[in-house]
Amino acid sequence: MRIMEITKREIKTLEERTFPSEICFKPIGIMHSPFKSLKGVPIQPSVSEDKGLIEIFPQYKLALKDLDKFGFIICIFHFDMVKLPIPLQSKPFLDDEEHGVFAIRTPFRPNPIGFSILKLTQIIEHELHVENVDILDNTPILDIKPYVPHFDVRETEKIGWLQGKIKKKLS
Amino acid sequence: MRIMEITKREIKTLEERTFPSEICFKPIGIMHSPFKSLKGVPIQPSVSEDKGLIEIFPQYKLALKDLDKFGFIICIFHFDMVKLPIPLQSKPFLDDEEHGVFAIRTPFRPNPIGFSILKLTQIIEHELHVENVDILDNTPILDIKPYVPHFDVRETEKIGWLQGKIKKKLS
Repeated sequence: MRIMEITKREIKTLEERTFPSEICFKPIGIMHSPFKSLKGVPIQPSVSEDKGLIEIFPQYKLALKDLDKFGFIICIFHFDMVKLPIPLQSKPFLDDEEHGVFAIRTPFRPNPIGFSILKLTQIIEHELHVENVDILDNTPILDIKPYVPHFDVRETEKIGWLQGKIKKKLS
Repeated sequence: MRIMEITKREIKTLEERTFPSEICFKPIGIMHSPFKSLKGVPIQPSVSEDKGLIEIFPQYKLALKDLDKFGFIICIFHFDMVKLPIPLQSKPFLDDEEHGVFAIRTPFRPNPIGFSILKLTQIIEHELHVENVDILDNTPILDIKPYVPHFDVRETEKIGWLQGKIKKKLS
């Protein structure tokens, strides 16, 4: 029975598990935002007051059940504007020195995966109304997770090259 | 000149940009952790005291420059044990009711992308020594970003079905 098949959660055996050379995903939705080009996109969602809409494709609607009770979501998406290969070091917006791309939040990364925490204000059918948007219009969305402070908040003063730079330019 | 090519950051023009049916990534590293099977993997990094090692592949070593000055990293990885398709709703570890998979943190998601915030204790060559590990041994790593409280911390009491369940079972 088809229903039984898709409600079963299967995992690979250790023998089936081989290290992949490539991992492919299918977008689960698309971003609708005021940002039609990279110019003017806020550098981080925490400093954005812009609103947007994440359209989850209808076949995934059931996966949204009870998400509306969360205040924030983690949105994982593809920086589809980036052309590979990228340089492994570059100057971030907030600094004049080059750093490794794993030490900065640039879209220009070996795997151009974006990560934004967005304020969720409403879900209507399969559309998520969000605030604090820093994502380009028409961006392919890969995953949505509920933001849970107990899981996702860490306290640290160790913020590397950003030390002393955030307050100056952002707030 | 090759060097010039790879230090140039190129973006697609709006005409070149078409919505993808599939997005493929190459692992940038591999997780070495004490968890050889899904049994015993902590449900969240925030409750794990286990140590591990992220081996970044040597060709990406330059991308690690200055990451060692950060206290925590965001690690994005592939739950490669998951066989698709998955059910769109399921019962999470902390509850007896079914919720949409976008409202829970299960590995069984349409795109099995994992997200953990790990404590970074040391970088030796291209190996990241980390704590709070909740990632299975041999997991393919897709991206590493610096964790920055100013960007990544949100305050909210709206934690949906997790309300009242976290303290009870986790701490």
